Order: sequence, then C-alpha cells, then structure tokens
Amino acid sequence: MTGNCLIAQSGGPTAVINNSLYGIIEESLQSPQIQKVYGARRGVYGLLNQDYIDLGQLSKPQLEMLRMTPGAALGSWRYKLSTHEIEIIVAHMQANDIRYFYYIGGNGSMHVAHLIHQAAQKKGYELNVIGVPKTVDNDLTQTDHSPGFGSAAKFLATSILDMSMDIMSLPKSNRITIVETMGRNTGWLAASCALGMQQETGIPLLIYIPESPFCEEKFLRDVQKKYEQHGSALVIVSEGIRDGAGRLIADSALVRDAVGRPQLGGVAGYLKDVITTQGAGLSARYILPSIWQRSGMMFSSGVDVEEAYLAGKHACYHAKQGINGAMVTLQRKKRPFYAVEYGSVPLKEVAGKEKLFPLEWYDADSHFVKAEFFDYIYPLIQGEVSIPMKNGLPAYQYFIS
Amino acid sequence: MTGNCLIAQSGGPTAVINNSLYGIIEESLQSPQIQKVYGARRGVYGLLNQDYIDLGQLSKPQLEMLRMTPGAALGSWRYKLSTHEIEIIVAHMQANDIRYFYYIGGNGSMHVAHLIHQAAQKKGYELNVIGVPKTVDNDLTQTDHSPGFGSAAKFLATSILDMSMDIMSLPKSNRITIVETMGRNTGWLAASCALGMQQETGIPLLIYIPESPFCEEKFLRDVQKKYEQHGSALVIVSEGIRDGAGRLIADSALVRDAVGRPQLGGVAGYLKDVITTQGAGLSARYILPSIWQRSGMMFSSGVDVEEAYLAGKHACYHAKQGINGAMVTLQRKKRPFYAVEYGSVPLKEVAGKEKLFPLEWYDADSHFVKAEFFDYIYPLIQGEVSIPMKNGLPAYQYFIS
Repeated sequence: MTGNCLIAQSGGPTAVINNSLYGIIEESLQSPQIQKVYGARRGVYGLLNQDYIDLGQLSKPQLEMLRMTPGAALGSWRYKLSTHEIEIIVAHMQANDIRYFYYIGGNGSMHVAHLIHQAAQKKGYELNVIGVPKTVDNDLTQTDHSPGFGSAAKFLATSILDMSMDIMSLPKSNRITIVETMGRNTGWLAASCALGMQQETGIPLLIYIPESPFCEEKFLRDVQKKYEQHGSALVIVSEGIRDGAGRLIADSALVRDAVGRPQLGGVAGYLKDVITTQGAGLSARYILPSIWQRSGMMFSSGVDVEEAYLAGKHACYHAKQGINGAMVTLQRKKRPFYAVEYGSVPLKEVAGKEKLFPLEWYDADSHFVKAEFFDYIYPLIQGEVSIPMKNGLPAYQYFIS
Repeated sequence: MTGNCLIAQSGGPTAVINNSLYGIIEESLQSPQIQKVYGARRGVYGLLNQDYIDLGQLSKPQLEMLRMTPGAALGSWRYKLSTHEIEIIVAHMQANDIRYFYYIGGNGSMHVAHLIHQAAQKKGYELNVIGVPKTVDNDLTQTDHSPGFGSAAKFLATSILDMSMDIMSLPKSNRITIVETMGRNTGWLAASCALGMQQETGIPLLIYIPESPFCEEKFLRDVQKKYEQHGSALVIVSEGIRDGAGRLIADSALVRDAVGRPQLGGVAGYLKDVITTQGAGLSARYILPSIWQRSGMMFSSGVDVEEAYLAGKHACYHAKQGINGAMVTLQRKKRPFYAVEYGSVPLKEVAGKEKLFPLEWYDADSHFVKAEFFDYIYPLIQGEVSIPMKNGLPAYQYFIS
C-alpha cells in the first residue's frame, strides 16, 4: 500500500528508544511505497493536534546522532485519550494519507495503538498499525524481553558494583545501604542488581520485589543477620513492593510532620527509618537513581542498542508484509548461542497486560535471584557503546522537539 | 635515607584514589634507597595494629589493575586517634624501619599526618611524612584542586545532562526534579552540576550551596518562576545547605511520625515536601546519587586519573628530596594551556582547614555559577578512560584488603 508513515514515541523514555525511531526512519526512507516519513511531536499531543514533522528532512548525520541520544527525541506525553479523541487522531491520519503508523511504547501505549487500529478498521480506513516494544520495566508480555530493559539493568548492576567497592573500603561502618529501583508492579529491575555481585566483593545483597509480599519483621531480621555475618549489607528494593494484603509499602511512608503536613517519601526512605529506629544499633542511607536509570546512555548495553534498532526495522518489515494491529516481539532462540528472532503478536494480546517477574526465579527466603535469571539476563547487558563526547561530556547535540 | 616505606589511604574513597596509590608504589619500587614497600590495611586500623602488607609482592598486572578500580584498595577507616595512639603508630613504624610514610586523604587525614610527623620529630625518629591530596569535595586548601574532584564532578554533570534529556521528553509534567550532591560544608560538587547545561537542553538549573544562606521563601519563589517560564526545573542542592543562622536545612527535615519515631530525611527529601505542600500545584521528585558519585569509575575524568597518579609519584619525588611534613599540591600554570605543577605545602597549613566555594563565582540571586567557575572546572573533567569489562560489567578484579 502506498502512502505516508507516522511514528510516535510514548510513555517514559529509555536510553535506547531513539534507536527504534532510527530503525523505522531508516527503513521507511528506503521503501518506495512510503512517501513521507512523519514524526508526531510529543506523542499523543502530536497525534491529537496534527503536530507532525517531516523526518525525511533530517540529514544523515542528524539521524545517526539519534542512536546515541537518550530520552524520547520526538517527545512524549502522559495523557488518557477519550474514544472521541481516538477518532480525531484517525481522522487526522486519513487527512494526511498516513497508511503506516508506528507506536513505540509500553503496555499502556499498546492499548492506545490497539484502539487506533480498531477505530481505523471501524471507519474502513486502511491503516497499518505496528507497536514497537519499549520499557525499562520489562513488563511487556509475549516478548522475551523489551528494548530499554537491558540498558537500565546494566546501569543498575554497574552502580551496585561501584558502590560495593566503596562499601568494602570502609568496612564495619554499621551502615546499611538501600537502593530503590523503578518497577511499580514488577521486580525485573530490582532483580538485575544481582548482577552487581559478579565480582565477589563480599557485600551481601537482599533484593525485594513487588511479586513477593514484603514482611517488615523478616526484613529487619534479614538485614541484621547479614550485617552480623558480613559487617555490611546492600538492600535493593523495587519502588512497588507490597505487604501481604497488597498494600504498597511506600504508602506507609506517608507520615505527617509537626504541623500536620504530609511527608511523602519513597519506600527506600521508609526502610531507612525502619532500620534506624528498630534495627539494633544499625544506621542506614539510601540511593535513588530515579529517572537516571532510564536515561544513562553511558551504560547502555550494546545488545540492547542493536535490538532496539532492529525492532524498529522489523516494525517496517512487518507492516510492508501486511501485518497489522500487532506488536513486534523478540523471541529468544535456543541455546547454545544467544540470538533473537523478531516476530509479532496481536496488539490486543499485550495491551494493558503485565509480565511479572517469575517467582520460580526468586528465593523468597534468601531474597535473592536464582541461576535461571542470570542465564536470562546476562546476554541482555553485553557490549558497550562509545558515545561521542564534547568538552568532557556526552554530545547529545540533536533533539527534534 | 635508606629504609622502608608505608602507604595508607584514609577517609571516604574516590574513583581515582588508587591511582595515587599506584603512583607511590611504582616510584618507590624503582627507588634504590627504599627497601620494602608496605601498605597499611584499612587506614588508621592498619597503622595502629601494625597490619602492614608487602606491596612489592604484587605482580605488575595486579598493580596495573589498581588504576581502573574505584574505592580504597588498601581499605580505609573512620576513627579519631588519641595522642597515645599516635605514639603507638610511630613506635610501630620505628620497629619496622619505616622511613617514608605516605598518607592519601583529605583535610582530616592531613591533620593526622601532621600529628605523626610531630610525634616522630619529638621522638627524634627520622621519618619523612608526605600527604597526598584526595577528596571529591575539593575542599583542601593550598592546592588548585584535589584528585577525586574532577571525576565526581564529571559524574554529576553527566547525570544532570542525561536526566535533562529525559525531562525534555516529557515536558510540562509539573514535576520539579531535585538532585542532592555531597558537600557537607562546601558547594564545589553542587556547582559542578552547572556543566550539565552544556548541551542547552532548555531545562533550567537552580544551584544551592552551603556557602550561601538558604531562604525557603526565595527557594519556592525561584522554583515557581522557573517552572512558569520553562515548564520544568532542576534543583541542585548540596547536602550541607544552611539557613541564615547557620543551621543545616537537613536538620529541619527531622520530623516525627504518628508514633513519635523520628523520620530522618536528607535535604532533598525535605525540599520535595516543601514544593509538594507549598508550591502551588507543583510536585517534586528527588535523585540521591550518594556514594555512587565518588565510586563511579565509568565517568572518571582522564585528567583526574592522571593527576591522581602523578600526585602519588610526586609524593615520592618530594620525600626523596628531603621534603618532610608536607602535602603535595597541584598548582595550575598560567593560560593559555591547562597544565599543573606539583609543589608542596607544610601539612600544618592544610590540616583541618577547608577551601570554600568562592562566593564571587556564585550568583546568589539566580542561584547559578559564573563564567569564572567554568574556566576553572572544564579542564578537570576532560578525557575519558576505558575500563576493562567482563561479562558486560566493569572488571574490578583486584582488591587488597
């Protein structure tokens, strides 16, 4: 089918999201049936307001700079669309002869892509909708893993290793170190921190994930035991850990100060207080990498960068083959060597669904991951990238929005 | 003077502290007048307990691995020595025919080195004591800057740049991002974050340092103004900011929860609450790099790595020339090209003293640094290092203690 294509980025960005964008642009520009290659500025905002930019106008060097630039280069947006707005978006696409629509995002975005796909079909407008997986949380179903996860995992594992070297330097300081990772509902990123044990620094790790109920009493006992055995401990906690009743632990941290103002703290701050006030003689500190864990380009995994790019390329291949209303998937091939094949799955099968961390890969007693998880994750963090530098800092010179 | 030498590391480690250690070992092993090259394990602990290890036994590859390993490889300790313990330390040195003593540390450590120097003189024991500057805080006086600072500055500036790319991706989220840096009394590291503005991301920065009194009302006004103008803002805050009466702002964060337990929070958490509860319609989040800012080897500055090494080498040169009771200094040569000369200064002139961030380089109205600071800091963050990797993570294989 001949016509124009439109690309949008959605949700929280990652270090490698622009590699998928680059892959789609590159492949689309080489496709004779695709005339104009448009990008929607600021995700849903651009779709709704017909704020499209012509990506074919970018020079080759400008496009290539995308590959080493973190954050969503087209811009993103958090906004809940109404049915009417979905219809407006499709009408805009029809008015601009958009025949291929690529949406780079997570499970919420795949739901939106699915709605757009349905609205176009209902209207009888021929539109190929393809989703490209993107999430640091690795919670998209039907795909072995998602681009963005490997780099965030490598970021966190490196931080754990670096900090372990520091903690080793000052032994028996009676201080417990807590690191809070992203992961509102899933423990993939918290679990990745286990990689930081690779060098056998001797600093014990306790990992808490949302999939396994959190018990404060056991937590305190575990921390004290590790401290007694090793003279130190690193606690990794996913932001979304919950108690046995499913209540977020972070919500318990909502306390009030002397004048009744709420003191909103994250779960790491709460656990720091638990240790300081109830852990016999122990003190604690915490590290919050927050949004840096999804934007730190210097740590990005070579494998992840390449897979994000190829996921974008395959979105185009799929669309040109007539696949419609589907998300690109990464399917791991059998051992002995790591490799992926790029398949597809109907959007409705991934829309709004979450892939939890498998509890069979987690030991809820020792609060550590099992060997199967290491087999799963090691290939995803391999390889380094060389970032262009300028005056001692990364040269992220190019940004569309 | 012929005899043995002893090296110790002290205080909080840095990414490059082992380069100074390597420089001293390398030069000492090449010096005919030096017989054994010892390292004291765990700083003061090793000095007090005569826990010395023979560094001459290490292989060349083992030694070279020190250069790319963060954290104090000999180990460190935080402990306040009595006069009697200083005498014990000198007695141990005499018993082991230590004639050269190198102490790698900050202003507190230089005080200890000075006491050891005095105790040896009082006793009539011929001992050359040389201090090697080390601090991420850059607060040592009499030296243009200190090894360790450039790498921590590069770490923080990179994080600000990366996070700015993320914040740009999701504009107008009404969320203010706060980053807390190290610096109990000095704002050098907080000020370094200004480098993250290099790429003109359009995300405004407000920087708060301990040297300039903090006013909560002005803070709220400034944040709101930046948000109105730019749709976002990054707040950089040194952990040690103080109000007009010299009280730590972080201390105000000491509130009590419903059952009267103290909730100990850092200043970033406190300012997040101030914005959330008093900033009209704004929310906030915060990033705490904590000890990672001093242990992140991947960001270390090539200039800093080399200067840390050369500071170690010059400690030996100085000692062999008979300089005693002194600290190595880095003196910046005149423009146009950046270069340093390695001088020395009596330990008593740096012991326990602090170099504050110059207020003439800071605009207390706009809360930003002036051009003179950029001239000062840019040379210190130049150059990258290539870290040996193993299975996708840094290979810090070697650690003495």
